Amino acid sequence: MQKKIVLADSDIPRFYYNLMADLPFSASPPLHPGTREPISPDDLSAIFPMALIEQEASPQQEIPIPEEVLEVYKIYRPTPLIRATALEKSLKTPARIYYKHEGTSPVGSHKPNTAIAQAYYNHLEGTKRLVTETGAGQWGTALAFACQKFDMECKVFMVRCSFDQKPYRKIMMQLYGAEILPSPSLTTEAGRQALKKDSDTPGSLGIAISEAIEEAIGRKDAKYALGSVLNHVLLHQTVIGQETAAQLQSVGEKPDVIIGCHGGGSNFAGIAFPFIRDKINGADLDIIAVEPLSCPTLTKGNLDYDFGDTAGTTPLMRMYTLGHDFIPPNIHAGGLRYHGSSPLVSLLLEKDLIRAEAVPQLDVFRSAVLFTKTEGVIPAPESAHAIEMAVREAIKAREEGQEKVIVFNLSGHGHLDMQAYQEYLQGNMTAEDAGEGPDLSFGVAC
Amino acid sequence: MQKKIVLADSDIPRFYYNLMADLPFSASPPLHPGTREPISPDDLSAIFPMALIEQEASPQQEIPIPEEVLEVYKIYRPTPLIRATALEKSLKTPARIYYKHEGTSPVGSHKPNTAIAQAYYNHLEGTKRLVTETGAGQWGTALAFACQKFDMECKVFMVRCSFDQKPYRKIMMQLYGAEILPSPSLTTEAGRQALKKDSDTPGSLGIAISEAIEEAIGRKDAKYALGSVLNHVLLHQTVIGQETAAQLQSVGEKPDVIIGCHGGGSNFAGIAFPFIRDKINGADLDIIAVEPLSCPTLTKGNLDYDFGDTAGTTPLMRMYTLGHDFIPPNIHAGGLRYHGSSPLVSLLLEKDLIRAEAVPQLDVFRSAVLFTKTEGVIPAPESAHAIEMAVREAIKAREEGQEKVIVFNLSGHGHLDMQAYQEYLQGNMTAEDAGEGPDLSFGVAC
Repeated sequence: MQKKIVLADSDIPRFYYNLMADLPFSASPPLHPGTREPISPDDLSAIFPMALIEQEASPQQEIPIPEEVLEVYKIYRPTPLIRATALEKSLKTPARIYYKHEGTSPVGSHKPNTAIAQAYYNHLEGTKRLVTETGAGQWGTALAFACQKFDMECKVFMVRCSFDQKPYRKIMMQLYGAEILPSPSLTTEAGRQALKKDSDTPGSLGIAISEAIEEAIGRKDAKYALGSVLNHVLLHQTVIGQETAAQLQSVGEKPDVIIGCHGGGSNFAGIAFPFIRDKINGADLDIIAVEPLSCPTLTKGNLDYDFGDTAGTTPLMRMYTLGHDFIPPNIHAGGLRYHGSSPLVSLLLEKDLIRAEAVPQLDVFRSAVLFTKTEGVIPAPESAHAIEMAVREAIKAREEGQEKVIVFNLSGHGHLDMQAYQEYLQGNMTAEDAGEGPDLSFGVAC
Repeated sequence: MQKKIVLADSDIPRFYYNLMADLPFSASPPLHPGTREPISPDDLSAIFPMALIEQEASPQQEIPIPEEVLEVYKIYRPTPLIRATALEKSLKTPARIYYKHEGTSPVGSHKPNTAIAQAYYNHLEGTKRLVTETGAGQWGTALAFACQKFDMECKVFMVRCSFDQKPYRKIMMQLYGAEILPSPSLTTEAGRQALKKDSDTPGSLGIAISEAIEEAIGRKDAKYALGSVLNHVLLHQTVIGQETAAQLQSVGEKPDVIIGCHGGGSNFAGIAFPFIRDKINGADLDIIAVEPLSCPTLTKGNLDYDFGDTAGTTPLMRMYTLGHDFIPPNIHAGGLRYHGSSPLVSLLLEKDLIRAEAVPQLDVFRSAVLFTKTEGVIPAPESAHAIEMAVREAIKAREEGQEKVIVFNLSGHGHLDMQAYQEYLQGNMTAEDAGEGPDLSFGVAC
């Protein structure tokens, strides 16, 4: 039995897969925050390079990956697809579970897939400095790494609760040459406003985005980079799903269930989009986006035009949203603490091409520990949301006596999330802390 | 140009390579600590299972790897061999530099290669609990992971300075189900003696070994596990070098220089031993063990019989040693803070089959940062000793205009060593702290 399916350098996809080209319906355009008219490429050029603005609305099905980007991908791509045999056994499930291990990248997550591409296109158009925000620190680390590869400066606004909880991530970004500020900070108008409203705020991705955009617009040679939500970001992540499809095919497997955790949508899109194409073409596939119960954007949010940030400076996007002033509880999956979602993922949910599920933090950590105990790999708390859903699906398969193939994206390792695990192991993590009320545990028999 | 050379599950070596079978001279036997007579297998059976005692003195050239061990290896082996193209470019060297990336294992280092084997053989012979010591925490984490795979308990004495400096490692071991104590502790006679001598001691591997052995001997169903030094440990690590040889061959490369950092000898042996065979058979190979200037066992120690621990409870081994009561300075490469070395590596050095070099901590961290900046991968401080030597060899190749092939083992990633990097980045790391006197920097032109 093959445990691990690896591919060679030469198997890295040569194209990003653009799902928009294959969708049988069209997406609602983003609107200008001032005029509420569809936004023009020119409006976006203050914060993004033209190549990325073009990708944002490209009708082209396959977008070539530049050689320079492929060279950097080769450090860690293709990532392995691993059969979770020990997890299967512990769950006594007839299902076959596979996970795509994006935690094997140098920064420990899937984020470099787009960071490298964004840094490259910016570099090509003369950008000297990229400004961004980060939640758990995964995105900030990835962008810092990518900027260093293309000799650019990098400035990161890090959501304050993560800044305090994850000192190692901060040092890691500094090691990759980046400058880090806790958000909200006193260096931007958006930050000062947020602190005026609540000087004790844990911060949020929404606030940090406002600060980063403000900083980027204020400097001539600087641009802004976003780690999720937008079409071009999701596009770059499709290397994950393309590789996964090739790996499954190489062992003769056809997936039944595809799972990704969901914050802004980028790792979910990465694993899911190439399979959505199959679904459009008639494949019987259950594709699930998993989010925290305490930040239930897809399951409890409204589908409406809203801002991507708290201060209301981004274009308005039609997406599932909890409201741009929603501040999620201080849960440990910092990368999933976002009020909105990607317009493209929202559209797929609206059209029933995917479904969304919300899971409580305690269940997520229990599954993370089960995964560590069985497979030996410690997952990031974000990725553990996907594990929790895979566990649920595997138990369902057992109860229904179905031999399903379940595939999920392990978006990152948890080596830098030890404080969260300590809290869980010591019994100090409560459902109430996560804003979830009493524990609604799902019975895992193992 | 191929950046990364990957192998499939089916390419994992099926045998451990036993260098002893091919050596043209024989090793001096370990002596009983009481009688000073050669030790018998029976003497060792209180702390090791019989299968490992047999491997310790086996004349067999190839020792089959059990299926159960291979199954666990498949989670992360074979590890990739990666061409350090960006590092080469920054050094303007004609040398081609390759690194074997053992940091891709679930615990982030090469240590599971032997931990899994040791846990398996113990499990087979009925051991219910393994006791060990750990320096930086890499070995303790690996053994905890391995014990969990074979349903055994694991107790780890962690050298106090690492226990304090590396809280994440501690939690990681707990997550893998292990019990952790700082060493010296008050729970053993050896620990109490060490604390009586110096209540402020940072601890050492020597003391921690004494404590672990004392604890293992005191319990009927417990055995002791060592993460380095002994023949059977080095044997298990030879999967590294065997894979490396196959990977180099697959791209038509013949190595000129093989480099590993050296603490107790296990990762060095892992990369080097399969190539020593080639050297015995006439290959022109420069094989280098790299150690910290502040703990210069191979370069400044005496070749003599000495104890492996501080309390003098282990068998006496003929090895390079700084004396079993030597307490190394509190440097950040905790895994290299050991007074002794492996008898087998010592023998190779005595017979000029390898050479040893000592490097200062500040140079090591400068090369670690250069490697991070160029290759994007953050190395463990231990592994960075090998990088520093690879950098020196690459510069020498440039100066001599030689197109050498330099191969080193990246024994682990540094994601859990951020405090050390912070100290370096902030300029708070001094040569004096490392017990090295004024900085003896080697001029790196990059």
